[in-house]
Amino acid sequence: MPCTWCSLLWFGSPNCHFGPYNTSYRPNIPVYNNSEMIGRYYEEFEIDERTGESNLTQIYLQEGLDFIFQQTLARQPFFLYWAPDATHAPVYASKHFLGKSQRGRYGDAVMELDYSVGQILAWLVTLGIDKNTFVFFTSDNGAALMSGPKQSGSNGPFLCGKETTFEGGMREPAIAWWPGHIPAGTVSYQLGSVMDLFTTSLTLAGLAAPFDRVIDGLDLTPSLFNNSMTDRPIFYYRGNQMMAVRVGPYKAHYWTWSNSWEEFNKGINFCPGQEVTGVTTHTQQEHTMQPLIIHLGRDPGEKYPISVLSKEYQTVLSRVTLIVEEHQKTLVPGQPQLNMCDLAVMNWAPPGCERLGKCLKPPQSQPWKCDWPH
Amino acid sequence: MPCTWCSLLWFGSPNCHFGPYNTSYRPNIPVYNNSEMIGRYYEEFEIDERTGESNLTQIYLQEGLDFIFQQTLARQPFFLYWAPDATHAPVYASKHFLGKSQRGRYGDAVMELDYSVGQILAWLVTLGIDKNTFVFFTSDNGAALMSGPKQSGSNGPFLCGKETTFEGGMREPAIAWWPGHIPAGTVSYQLGSVMDLFTTSLTLAGLAAPFDRVIDGLDLTPSLFNNSMTDRPIFYYRGNQMMAVRVGPYKAHYWTWSNSWEEFNKGINFCPGQEVTGVTTHTQQEHTMQPLIIHLGRDPGEKYPISVLSKEYQTVLSRVTLIVEEHQKTLVPGQPQLNMCDLAVMNWAPPGCERLGKCLKPPQSQPWKCDWPH
Repeated sequence: MPCTWCSLLWFGSPNCHFGPYNTSYRPNIPVYNNSEMIGRYYEEFEIDERTGESNLTQIYLQEGLDFIFQQTLARQPFFLYWAPDATHAPVYASKHFLGKSQRGRYGDAVMELDYSVGQILAWLVTLGIDKNTFVFFTSDNGAALMSGPKQSGSNGPFLCGKETTFEGGMREPAIAWWPGHIPAGTVSYQLGSVMDLFTTSLTLAGLAAPFDRVIDGLDLTPSLFNNSMTDRPIFYYRGNQMMAVRVGPYKAHYWTWSNSWEEFNKGINFCPGQEVTGVTTHTQQEHTMQPLIIHLGRDPGEKYPISVLSKEYQTVLSRVTLIVEEHQKTLVPGQPQLNMCDLAVMNWAPPGCERLGKCLKPPQSQPWKCDWPH
Repeated sequence: MPCTWCSLLWFGSPNCHFGPYNTSYRPNIPVYNNSEMIGRYYEEFEIDERTGESNLTQIYLQEGLDFIFQQTLARQPFFLYWAPDATHAPVYASKHFLGKSQRGRYGDAVMELDYSVGQILAWLVTLGIDKNTFVFFTSDNGAALMSGPKQSGSNGPFLCGKETTFEGGMREPAIAWWPGHIPAGTVSYQLGSVMDLFTTSLTLAGLAAPFDRVIDGLDLTPSLFNNSMTDRPIFYYRGNQMMAVRVGPYKAHYWTWSNSWEEFNKGINFCPGQEVTGVTTHTQQEHTMQPLIIHLGRDPGEKYPISVLSKEYQTVLSRVTLIVEEHQKTLVPGQPQLNMCDLAVMNWAPPGCERLGKCLKPPQSQPWKCDWPH
């Protein structure tokens, strides 16, 4: 369906602010304004790794506010995906926030995000479009505990962190905001995933989802506006492997893995201070014949798998088995588009580099199949 | 100072609802109405250990509401200490709440406590004394993780649970309520302890603390009404041993101990799923020469003691050392009044038992020095 009323604008980067890199070996990641690069992280867009100072969140905020203003001025509806990355290591905050929280540099970054979201909401009110704007706040994964304590948040009562399929890696807070449509202070127990935001956004825009494929996302508008509940499973993947499934308050682990002994012995720990025998395994442990089943209400920390001898286990297993069989039967694996790595295609000469005099000479192409140690 | 306007009333028990006991060996714990026993737990005051059903919280609630009503009717000021124990194992809830939460029996008990506190607050409003009544809600210790998962709560991000001097054992949520005096939604960062409630209550009643002894409690009214902060240390004891001290955001562990290997090997675990090398030690580990120092802001889970080689460690240690020396120099050890145990004095024939025909014959007195395995 052609986009008849929208402006496609982009400010940001195709990647997180990894780096700094030695540009003879690997270029720093470019920041784009629409289709042209306007600089690189650690070069034009400074991040001081030692002090943690960077004004990137302020830049993103200003870009977001400007976009909202321009769209409002032009009486155009808009979709803004505002994705600051200050809480990803190397964690940063701008001068005004640095050292201000009681939670270290990570807390400073969160404080600046909190402030910035507040600025965006206030801007919607100021422009008089708050009653016509749906805002959704969430995160893509749990706190990266392996970056702790200085560059990581906390996953509260949940097990382990980012990279894993335990709750600390997968469960996220989410806040929906739309004055006049969502009553303040409402709590929803609806099980959702960020994939739902696609379907939900289509509904809000009055558009239909494509019919030529299965869309995993659920339309959350009934939960959001009527606080109704839809019973649906959530599948937890790590790479191509279905590790676990959530059905109602239950979670069944078909595979468990924290990280490899090899990585762990190097000091990389996805579950610092936590060790649950038979659950936070350092080998990729198969439980497909007899999944570990946990009641996340009674046991949010995934510490006490339900006894396989109990009636509860058998009842839940029967239900979960049907759901997993159906899922695996109907699943159409995607074709990987990014499984070949090649230093030659890594941001050496992005569009716009000429104007800045920042084009680098790529090495010869030597592609290899990407690997991911986690 | 004589109490000229107060009525001293008591409904409850001198102990938690431990049991049920075989009354030939040890009597069940009596419930008193003022100075007379009116029954015993598991006998007149039923607790079904299998189903978890008991209406005790409802009884305590009714007694509390009645007391408030009588005092209000008589235009008498009052102090009510409302101490339900439903969340202590064996955890119970009344029929109306049993099975209603998503958190198992423990969640049901919390739901009933929440409801009951709501009833008390609503009652104050109904009687028109809410603007003249200070309410403080807190707990005496962190969740008893060793009773988990069915009979325990969660300590969220904090380390270990009840019985220990880690944050999971000692840090408590606290809510203060006084419409017109404490603005709703205010958050205080004041470091406090339940001992402060004594001093605070005296201030609220316009009374002076006794002058003949050192009172450890701090008057919290400046924090409560003006959200001011008083810098004060908190000492963490286990038995007679000062295990740790909190100074500002820092905590210094002078001793660490989860529980003994002997207990642990029997399956008693105060830190289920948690293990922090050198911190959750199963031997009583002395660190008095070089305390483990933790910044609870950056590291609320007590997983990353600060390097003893850092400047931060040295600065904090100097400050903490002075505070601990002063504490130990001025501390006057209390005289234990209950360190002798004797089966003969354990509730065989409490006052009032004759009227109920519930007096039991005590065994011969054979006192021994009490011990406590934790």
